[in-house]
Amino acid sequence: MRVTVNPNLVEMEYAVRGPIPMRAAELEAQGRKTIPCNIGNPQALGQDPITFYREVISLLEAPGRIARERRLRGVTGVASEDLLDEYVLDVAEHVLAQMKTGLGAYSESKGPRFIREAVAAYIDRRDEVDGRVAVASDPDRIFLTNGASEGAMFILEILISGPDDGVMIPIPQYPLYSAAIKRCGGSLVGYYPDEERGWEMDREILEASLAEAKGRGVNVKAIVVINPGNPTGAILAEHSIGEVIDFAEEHGLLIIADEVYQHNVYGAEFVSFARVLGEREVSLFSLHSTSKGFYGECGHRGGYLEVRNAPLLQGYDLDFADALLKRASVSLCPNTVGQAMTYLMVAEPKEGSPPWERFVAERDAVLAALQDKATLIREALGEMRGVECFGRTGAMYLFPRLSGLPEGTGDFDYCMALLEETGLCTVNGSGFHQRPGTSHLRIAFLPPKEMLAEVLPRWIAFHNAYVG
Amino acid sequence: MRVTVNPNLVEMEYAVRGPIPMRAAELEAQGRKTIPCNIGNPQALGQDPITFYREVISLLEAPGRIARERRLRGVTGVASEDLLDEYVLDVAEHVLAQMKTGLGAYSESKGPRFIREAVAAYIDRRDEVDGRVAVASDPDRIFLTNGASEGAMFILEILISGPDDGVMIPIPQYPLYSAAIKRCGGSLVGYYPDEERGWEMDREILEASLAEAKGRGVNVKAIVVINPGNPTGAILAEHSIGEVIDFAEEHGLLIIADEVYQHNVYGAEFVSFARVLGEREVSLFSLHSTSKGFYGECGHRGGYLEVRNAPLLQGYDLDFADALLKRASVSLCPNTVGQAMTYLMVAEPKEGSPPWERFVAERDAVLAALQDKATLIREALGEMRGVECFGRTGAMYLFPRLSGLPEGTGDFDYCMALLEETGLCTVNGSGFHQRPGTSHLRIAFLPPKEMLAEVLPRWIAFHNAYVG
Repeated sequence: MRVTVNPNLVEMEYAVRGPIPMRAAELEAQGRKTIPCNIGNPQALGQDPITFYREVISLLEAPGRIARERRLRGVTGVASEDLLDEYVLDVAEHVLAQMKTGLGAYSESKGPRFIREAVAAYIDRRDEVDGRVAVASDPDRIFLTNGASEGAMFILEILISGPDDGVMIPIPQYPLYSAAIKRCGGSLVGYYPDEERGWEMDREILEASLAEAKGRGVNVKAIVVINPGNPTGAILAEHSIGEVIDFAEEHGLLIIADEVYQHNVYGAEFVSFARVLGEREVSLFSLHSTSKGFYGECGHRGGYLEVRNAPLLQGYDLDFADALLKRASVSLCPNTVGQAMTYLMVAEPKEGSPPWERFVAERDAVLAALQDKATLIREALGEMRGVECFGRTGAMYLFPRLSGLPEGTGDFDYCMALLEETGLCTVNGSGFHQRPGTSHLRIAFLPPKEMLAEVLPRWIAFHNAYVG
Repeated sequence: MRVTVNPNLVEMEYAVRGPIPMRAAELEAQGRKTIPCNIGNPQALGQDPITFYREVISLLEAPGRIARERRLRGVTGVASEDLLDEYVLDVAEHVLAQMKTGLGAYSESKGPRFIREAVAAYIDRRDEVDGRVAVASDPDRIFLTNGASEGAMFILEILISGPDDGVMIPIPQYPLYSAAIKRCGGSLVGYYPDEERGWEMDREILEASLAEAKGRGVNVKAIVVINPGNPTGAILAEHSIGEVIDFAEEHGLLIIADEVYQHNVYGAEFVSFARVLGEREVSLFSLHSTSKGFYGECGHRGGYLEVRNAPLLQGYDLDFADALLKRASVSLCPNTVGQAMTYLMVAEPKEGSPPWERFVAERDAVLAALQDKATLIREALGEMRGVECFGRTGAMYLFPRLSGLPEGTGDFDYCMALLEETGLCTVNGSGFHQRPGTSHLRIAFLPPKEMLAEVLPRWIAFHNAYVG
């Protein structure tokens, strides 16, 4: 039997889970060791979870344990390292007191209000300048989501009605966006941050893309910015953010700011779109996730979406946040464990509390290791002929540009050969809609240092032989 | 600022989270006590989680605790009720040994193979007749999902390209289906199970619906069946299932079997579509969830989708399961805690193991209480003028038919008045696309017995006064 189906769904491409990782899975099944640098999945590469987060969630799953842990504290003979801090028990109790129905019940479709309040407070702390924020974050305009992907998909689903509706996407881009636009039957409108200026952008770059889209009859409705970048890893300068806001304001576009790597800036300051926006009335959707940062809790699928200046909907007595709530209701609610993880992400243990010191040590160790590993890879890239890597290091990725590939081959062939030869699984730049005529790859700087120390020399040798 | 948006997304209706529950939330905020019977959310109404499930998941969140629990077993002075069974520790270790990257990493998009194997084994045990199954379940054709809703949405998204594509839905129906079809821009094609014959169906009912759809130019591609029913709660007889399969085979339709209430049959035998299908080559998609049954773990958003006889896709060298995998990849993976919960749902503790007895006692107590509460409500309905309730009790709902409502009012008005008067929050039958000209309400039989004992007499009084 054959059925006709929606071609958009079949033609979506998702390179980070595409042919190269599939080949890596085949090799693994044959007993070959591969190194999965195709995706930002830190715990798959041995990064440990933050102990405090897991201790609390472990208690939320079995609330009866809180009283039990208190009883154990009174038993002589239990080693002190086998006792949970009173503070951890208190946090778990606090969460359960507010999440009254526990982890097992559906919550409000947006997530419980106390978590949305904690998210708003986090955003305000993050965006303070001289002790104040221009516009406070509103808990009623925050939606908890299953990872950031779900938030992005909700927005695009609502926004796109057909092929005339366009969304501007930075090229190279994260495949979630091309896939989601394709799925909704809309038009992808690429714009080209300037690689050699560290992937920054100016007005001219944005206007050129918009003009091109208008020229082919596309009604551009929104612009997506990913900061720190994915796949580029580059951290955007404040002036680039300002340019995007000016541009969006002038042309009446919504801004979708994918800020899931806001904790991956390695000593640089993270400047959010909300902070630069201040009191201006441009519509802004900001996405965050528990999957990245120093926590890397990808499997828990936590995250949030914050809306500012939600536009009214043409023809309805509703605004965009109302439409988001409708969409969220159909999925009932995001998973409650991811919600709890989101709460912990935005409500750190109190400074000076017993778990604080360990929390800070774990956080700093993860971030320092990521930075070191990025440096190791950058050094290796420096020994490869014709390879350049632009931009300040952010997120979890480097996106080096390759040149001198053999006639008739592209970065897909390169990455496939690299996998076969060294076991290193990366993603070809063409999987990210890179600028035509260029070649790149994306590598997640996540493997343990020993693994990198072993594979990088082999990559250098492979590379210099491959480009001949 | 105003934006145009996709009208399908704005016009979706989702009655179980619609105006009546919203009014209940307002009343709660004003300090009124309400009883949320609008949704199958057992733990929100005080149902306790299954201890074994939570003990294991609590350990999976903090794997270091497994060794710690073993150490505690050696400390004299720790009360025996404060020790975890060795068996629980072993199960947690077994899960972690196979889910190598733990709960914090993205898994395969379908979910890890060992869980899919456990699901397949569960399905085979469930569907055995005389110790054998006609066709064994294939772990490669199983997709873990965030609840069953996600699985249903994936199928419909792939299937529907536009308004000419139709899907047959039982009327009354669960709003997920109408909302998902609306969102994809397809056509809802209702069919009408026979209320007075306990919501059973025959060929004539199905053919009438198909003929009506063809008459308006709709290309019907699939038929949804919900068994046990939602909102009706009725358990389908095997002959009705057979009628659907014959019908689907003759007309080349896919069957989407929503079987999330397969454990809510209260002494009756659950007969699955897969069992009745046997070796016949009709395409069957079966949905299950961790949200219902005796576990009621709604917030964990676990579930699976099993595909049998996946059809090939017209114009592509792919079948429907390949398209599902593409769609699942864009969402990366379902939440891992929901995956672990799905594993536990299908892999019960070993008979005779220490947790077995408690597990069975908890399971049986939940199911017995649900059955008792359904009986209490049925008895109350018997005292209400003009109310009838058809079908064998299944799922978590009763769907009584109301008659004699005051001229010019409908079941929406009735349910709103019932809420205002008694605090009981139900959903009006019109929220489920009931047969025009009839009136119903859906009530989830979940509140604690004491609460029912208090509210049911007030409902009877309200009702008999309301219908006059």
